[in-house]
Amino acid sequence: MLQLHLQPESHIPLYIQLRDQLRALVHSGELRGGDRIPASRELAGHLGVHRTTVANAYAELESEGLIRGHVGRGTFICDMPARQFSPPPRPNGHGGSIRWEALFADERGDEGLSRLMPEIPPGAIAFTAARPSGEFFPVEEFRRCSNAVLRREGRQILQLGSSDGYDRLKSGIVDLLRGEGVNVGAGQIMITHGCQQAIDLITKAFLRPGDAVALEDPAYPGAIAVLAGARVRALSVTVETDAARTGRLGLDLDMLETVLLQNRVKFIFVTPDFHNPTGTAMPVANRRRLLELAARYQVPVVEDGIYARLRLRGNGLPSLKALDSAGHVIQIDSFSKIAFPGLRVGWCIGPEAVIERLRLLKQSTDIHSDQLAQAAMAEFVERGHLARHVAKMKQVYRRRLEAMEEALDKHMPDGATWTRPEGGMSLWVSLSPGFDAGELLIHARERGILFVPGRYFYLQHPQPNTLRLGFASLDEARIARGIQTLAEVVKSELRKRQRGVREESQARVALI
Amino acid sequence: MLQLHLQPESHIPLYIQLRDQLRALVHSGELRGGDRIPASRELAGHLGVHRTTVANAYAELESEGLIRGHVGRGTFICDMPARQFSPPPRPNGHGGSIRWEALFADERGDEGLSRLMPEIPPGAIAFTAARPSGEFFPVEEFRRCSNAVLRREGRQILQLGSSDGYDRLKSGIVDLLRGEGVNVGAGQIMITHGCQQAIDLITKAFLRPGDAVALEDPAYPGAIAVLAGARVRALSVTVETDAARTGRLGLDLDMLETVLLQNRVKFIFVTPDFHNPTGTAMPVANRRRLLELAARYQVPVVEDGIYARLRLRGNGLPSLKALDSAGHVIQIDSFSKIAFPGLRVGWCIGPEAVIERLRLLKQSTDIHSDQLAQAAMAEFVERGHLARHVAKMKQVYRRRLEAMEEALDKHMPDGATWTRPEGGMSLWVSLSPGFDAGELLIHARERGILFVPGRYFYLQHPQPNTLRLGFASLDEARIARGIQTLAEVVKSELRKRQRGVREESQARVALI
Repeated sequence: MLQLHLQPESHIPLYIQLRDQLRALVHSGELRGGDRIPASRELAGHLGVHRTTVANAYAELESEGLIRGHVGRGTFICDMPARQFSPPPRPNGHGGSIRWEALFADERGDEGLSRLMPEIPPGAIAFTAARPSGEFFPVEEFRRCSNAVLRREGRQILQLGSSDGYDRLKSGIVDLLRGEGVNVGAGQIMITHGCQQAIDLITKAFLRPGDAVALEDPAYPGAIAVLAGARVRALSVTVETDAARTGRLGLDLDMLETVLLQNRVKFIFVTPDFHNPTGTAMPVANRRRLLELAARYQVPVVEDGIYARLRLRGNGLPSLKALDSAGHVIQIDSFSKIAFPGLRVGWCIGPEAVIERLRLLKQSTDIHSDQLAQAAMAEFVERGHLARHVAKMKQVYRRRLEAMEEALDKHMPDGATWTRPEGGMSLWVSLSPGFDAGELLIHARERGILFVPGRYFYLQHPQPNTLRLGFASLDEARIARGIQTLAEVVKSELRKRQRGVREESQARVALI
Repeated sequence: MLQLHLQPESHIPLYIQLRDQLRALVHSGELRGGDRIPASRELAGHLGVHRTTVANAYAELESEGLIRGHVGRGTFICDMPARQFSPPPRPNGHGGSIRWEALFADERGDEGLSRLMPEIPPGAIAFTAARPSGEFFPVEEFRRCSNAVLRREGRQILQLGSSDGYDRLKSGIVDLLRGEGVNVGAGQIMITHGCQQAIDLITKAFLRPGDAVALEDPAYPGAIAVLAGARVRALSVTVETDAARTGRLGLDLDMLETVLLQNRVKFIFVTPDFHNPTGTAMPVANRRRLLELAARYQVPVVEDGIYARLRLRGNGLPSLKALDSAGHVIQIDSFSKIAFPGLRVGWCIGPEAVIERLRLLKQSTDIHSDQLAQAAMAEFVERGHLARHVAKMKQVYRRRLEAMEEALDKHMPDGATWTRPEGGMSLWVSLSPGFDAGELLIHARERGILFVPGRYFYLQHPQPNTLRLGFASLDEARIARGIQTLAEVVKSELRKRQRGVREESQARVALI
């Protein structure tokens, strides 16, 4: 006789509670490999919860490899792979097959990015993406660039190159930055496979297991994943999203200073412009104060500039790197948001000693970045295509942001608030307290609407009532329709609650 | 009064002895920041050694940042960066500049790859490279492929893609492998940035600090660098290069079994076909025995197949993966040697559970590999260009290998032996005992000849009389001329020794 105890009043979603309790029963040995568990409809009836709650819990357990469905027979607990350290292998004379799972090093932070890129059912309106809108890609212009560089310097492109990057691209980026008021030499730039690799290489270069960094909370899950994988402690510094309520917006610098005072922090990771996921930008006074803190506590800053060129309204602000007279900032950046994420071309700017260290690490990581993408992007920049494309996309994205705001203003019920980004690709919604975006997603998905629940972005104390809405990949009509539908789902949930009709009232049930 | 004690009879080269002793004097505090050290000519006179010996030691110390020359003033010991753990930073109110070097995590294995790619002076004949010969690149065919895929699927290529690789390339590789007798599904392949990234990802997935792997000795320095950076213990298993003397060729499987018995080994890393640096291939009976050992000790194998398609003579042998009925082998492979290293497109084959784990790691490492290179290579394979190019290059490389062997046979003095590779890009020379390839390189470089001293490839007990000669990047005439000159340098050194003229006889000198 197994007991499941769901607590509807908890801020933890019911399906998460159910998933965790079933997992605990497996780990404690109360459920064993081969045991049959009830069908979702059956268990939902027992527990008095919606069937999708059970289905969602089962889906997560299945993706973890804990349960498996057998056609016509039901759902069963899988045999568990041994995770613990096994004794040194002795010759067994037979040579059975290797249990690879038992050999894996740990898997911290692995799911971070996958959860941002769910399967999108046909016809769904997915606010999940923070990627550029492919329909405006100047494919033909890019093709001509690629063609030109292969004609002109194909042999050099195809041969082994430099770990710090293709010279023409490095020069192109030096020029691009100079035009933006940042003066760096070619020795202060290294080309990477996008910002993700820059974060990975910086982590490899500077951080050992147990080291601490200060990180925005919520944060980009790709940064959380790298730090977790390297067993680096990410110390949470709150990003305020509700200036009206808190009197602050963006990274809480008082909290940052407390973190710096109380810990030996090796780096401050920050996205001052159009922070992912909240869309907030750091005011210029805060940028200066952040650099003062970095200098006073001798803690360098990693500035993620990936969204900075996508300012859609308001006045431009200098980057930390542009304000960084003392040389305390490593800036990471990429063409992925302003041009083509499929090419994986980004870069990293820092003091020469840092770049040289990163270059050596890049060499033993993947020798160097693909040179065709680098050379073609260099040509794309030189011919002025990048500047034209960015100018055009800023118009496109501004209209989409405005369409989203208009739809939210029009349809969202009282109690919901959202950030008012001046750029980037997403905004951040806070529903009234008590809402759980994970549960909401189950109902929204049934109506063909996808978004990313806010809790995937948090380091600690996730606010379950938050969610991220990406606006860059959808046209205005779909944004308007999608937000209207989403608002209907929110209102429907709100009505259920207001009517006191709690479908999950009978939440303590014996499971036979 | 500082003492230097050089031992000419040691197998350690004199310049290495000198470098290490000077470094020790700095670390012990006997030489301090700002101290002037003698000019190389002066110190060489004191020590009774050749000036290049001192110059070489100084060059290494300079590259390590221990000494620096000041024009017109001499050579000085540098101020040392603090490496030890510093106390937690306290606000200093000033904010001086950050000492980045003090923040670096460790730097093990960093130099491994750089040393293989020295600057090549104009006009020099460089046997250093193990890269394809660029003059035969079918640039125009490749350009048409790149052009075709951008026309046909440009929008998809430029948009964010899958972490496991571009579908068409994965299918192309499945077909390629099927044609070679290896049947894998698309779920068992992941695209990487070449073999180097495959080694890095496998290390991330499976190996923790302190874990042990069995590695060929000598080995590919890129593997040594990754394992050292991850603080993995690489256990040495000798690769025999002299079948006439030892009765063995290639990896010593008795030694491997001893290593497996005495240690908890997590992986066996091996290059059965045309091992870099020695050029040896593992006989088929040894391949079967290696797989038996892997099964008996339950230790999986990472097979580096990067040179296997470059069999230049003799009969083809099945890869470990082709023989791997039990699923114990992860095979890493790449287009870098058979086509274009500048594109960084490689792949990795293994059980689905492993590929899925690697996919998640790839995602948090760099999201995915560049899709233009992937799509263009898929087209290049589909159109048959790859097969034609490989067939052609095998002819080219076979002629170059034969030219090298002919020149070695003709010019090398007695006592020197070399491997007789049936494929790959390099062969391995053993000079008579007492020779030091590092010292020899100093004299060879003066004659415009470069090679890689063997000791860069060893895990332990480096054989100083060995060196690697790459034959793939040079035409037959330059190979003949270069080997003749190299042999002259060897003979000249031999004559010096035979005449008993030991320039370094007076090796114990007081340094004032």
